[in-house]
Amino acid sequence: MLLDASHSQLVLVDYQQRLMPAIFDGEAVLANAVRLGRMARLAEVPVWGTEENPSRLGENLPDVRTLCQRTLSKMHFSAMQEGLADWLRPPAKAPQGNARSLPKHLQKPKQPAEERNIIVIAGCEAHVCLLQTALELLEDEFEVYVVTDACGSRTERNRDAAFDRLAGAGAELVTTEMVGFEWVRSAEHPKFRDVLALIR
Amino acid sequence: MLLDASHSQLVLVDYQQRLMPAIFDGEAVLANAVRLGRMARLAEVPVWGTEENPSRLGENLPDVRTLCQRTLSKMHFSAMQEGLADWLRPPAKAPQGNARSLPKHLQKPKQPAEERNIIVIAGCEAHVCLLQTALELLEDEFEVYVVTDACGSRTERNRDAAFDRLAGAGAELVTTEMVGFEWVRSAEHPKFRDVLALIR
Amino acid sequence: MLLDASHSQLVLVDYQQRLMPAIFDGEAVLANAVRLGRMARLAEVPVWGTEENPSRLGENLPDVRTLCQRTLSKMHFSAMQEGLADWLRPPAKAPQGNARSLPKHLQKPKQPAEERNIIVIAGCEAHVCLLQTALELLEDEFEVYVVTDACGSRTERNRDAAFDRLAGAGAELVTTEMVGFEWVRSAEHPKFRDVLALIR
Amino acid sequence: MLLDASHSQLVLVDYQQRLMPAIFDGEAVLANAVRLGRMARLAEVPVWGTEENPSRLGENLPDVRTLCQRTLSKMHFSAMQEGLADWLRPPAKAPQGNARSLPKHLQKPKQPAEERNIIVIAGCEAHVCLLQTALELLEDEFEVYVVTDACGSRTERNRDAAFDRLAGAGAELVTTEMVGFEWVRSAEHPKFRDVLALIR
Repeated sequence: MLLDASHSQLVLVDYQQRLMPAIFDGEAVLANAVRLGRMARLAEVPVWGTEENPSRLGENLPDVRTLCQRTLSKMHFSAMQEGLADWLRPPAKAPQGNARSLPKHLQKPKQPAEERNIIVIAGCEAHVCLLQTALELLEDEFEVYVVTDACGSRTERNRDAAFDRLAGAGAELVTTEMVGFEWVRSAEHPKFRDVLALIR
Repeated sequence: MLLDASHSQLVLVDYQQRLMPAIFDGEAVLANAVRLGRMARLAEVPVWGTEENPSRLGENLPDVRTLCQRTLSKMHFSAMQEGLADWLRPPAKAPQGNARSLPKHLQKPKQPAEERNIIVIAGCEAHVCLLQTALELLEDEFEVYVVTDACGSRTERNRDAAFDRLAGAGAELVTTEMVGFEWVRSAEHPKFRDVLALIR
Repeated sequence: MLLDASHSQLVLVDYQQRLMPAIFDGEAVLANAVRLGRMARLAEVPVWGTEENPSRLGENLPDVRTLCQRTLSKMHFSAMQEGLADWLRPPAKAPQGNARSLPKHLQKPKQPAEERNIIVIAGCEAHVCLLQTALELLEDEFEVYVVTDACGSRTERNRDAAFDRLAGAGAELVTTEMVGFEWVRSAEHPKFRDVLALIR
Repeated sequence: MLLDASHSQLVLVDYQQRLMPAIFDGEAVLANAVRLGRMARLAEVPVWGTEENPSRLGENLPDVRTLCQRTLSKMHFSAMQEGLADWLRPPAKAPQGNARSLPKHLQKPKQPAEERNIIVIAGCEAHVCLLQTALELLEDEFEVYVVTDACGSRTERNRDAAFDRLAGAGAELVTTEMVGFEWVRSAEHPKFRDVLALIR
């Protein structure tokens, strides 16, 4: 039940230029998103971004965008409707060389995709794009950890209602610090000091 | 787990003239009920109303009443005791014409009622008529989504106790905005701008 | 899941003279206990009381005591350790008359005790005597409804921790008004006006 | 579901000299930890301590340290990674004397370790070392009771998020007073007056 860095991926949802100023407690939300991205880098966890209708809402803020290896542009509120699952579960590579000519029952099974089934996710608005993406990740059998102090909505009530609904649907609710300390696990981890510096 | 407009129906419970002035935060509750009704119309979701003992408590307020295709008058606190289920699950139509004379095993099965098993519900008082109706909807195997920011009681404590109990009984707690954005799902939905206009 | 008066019993735990003045929000707690007792009488629901170590803490306050058909004196915090279950599930009556001389397979089964398996319970302190009694009622397979606004502890935090724990253990959390309106169910119930008068 | 002293052990996590001053509401947290330790002594419940990286964070505060029969020094945030389970489930003793020479099917089964499978746990930070230890205790099939009013983090939000996550994972959330009154169960318990004196 503790987060394991080697099976985790981080998804940062819609920290966009024309959306963030309207978010309740938006500065703290953004600061935690950036912390999460930096901790992911330290723990060698892949980081993905999404942007809703960027021609209207602007790109993700630069501090977030530069931490993401790729950013998905979308019109649906749920990034799962626009291919996010393909990024999180890359298809197995086809067998190469002579193996292809072997009879099927002698071929090795397809190389499984690297297993990073734990999705640590945060974003805005908590009750729209973050919620819809996270609920569809759960339906697709990912293990979903929502980082509540890096999520925001325009109103507190909508934000908190999203957290309650996500918890009821099986998501684990965590905080930025929990994520950092579970990815390193020990004061002897080589990156422990760096994680600590991000938090305090 | 996301709301699907094509399987939804909206039930608006007891927004009545002589009750609403006593409801905690009643104006906001009423405004959200009206938003819900208008979003339902945009998303082609059927809208039903109920009124408790209208000769004493008055009719539903006009803004709500005009949005409902029918309004059920009742004396029981639970509308399920007075026929609401028949409105939500209309009986299958009897087979017509020659089919009636066919031997039974050759007849087509009765035409199933249109399946709209998701009931989005809100109303007053949250801990009496809304609660009793919603709990009986759950017992009757509807999927029940309670729109918390469109529900009210005279006191906050009774209202919140109703939400906790409903969640424990299997209802999903949502907000008006969640409903709107799940019924349209995408910024490219033809009614997205209209829904957005209702909310912001 | 709604309360049914014909299967309910009410248990009022430790509203004692030397305890109540120390209870957080104690006057409102007591007022709701009295309301519950009166509503139980109107709905023909049996009412039982308990008192912890009455030689030190005093008897239940008179307004509560007179509503209870019997009051159990105890030293254990849980009334279940001192025979409460026997009051709630009276033993079946032995068969009378000639029946006793019939061979066993011809005797009628013992008359089952009247089935009132729903225990509506409230009291003080919420996190000690109320909690311990309610948890043991659950273990004994009663259906337990805790009336939160008629329960109190010396501190809010202990009180609320009791409610969370009870909910997690399978108790239903309700309020005084919920109980009243579920016991009558309809504005046409002959005691509806009396219940309403107790509440408003 | 009530705590049973004869099956309980108490674990006090990281009440350290250079950590406690930074803890939200730290004085009350510490006072409850000391109360818990003293109640454990009265109820003959074993008490264990842990310290995270004591060369940097200092030892546990003396009031806590002297109540623990042993204190585990660790670098991992979870004490379960450093042998706590061996203290909580001591290995069965090997059979002694002649028995060893008996044929196997005549030997008595190994003496089972004393069964104290209920772990009452509290500590700091609630969302790091306490959380990680408690979640791993749950995975190892201990029954875990987290004493919330004896736990702390630097921020309230992290602390409360830890409690929610622990409850979701199957831990029971309790308070210091609940523990004391469940370990003694009755006003006639020989240590009841002593427990009462610790609380009031």
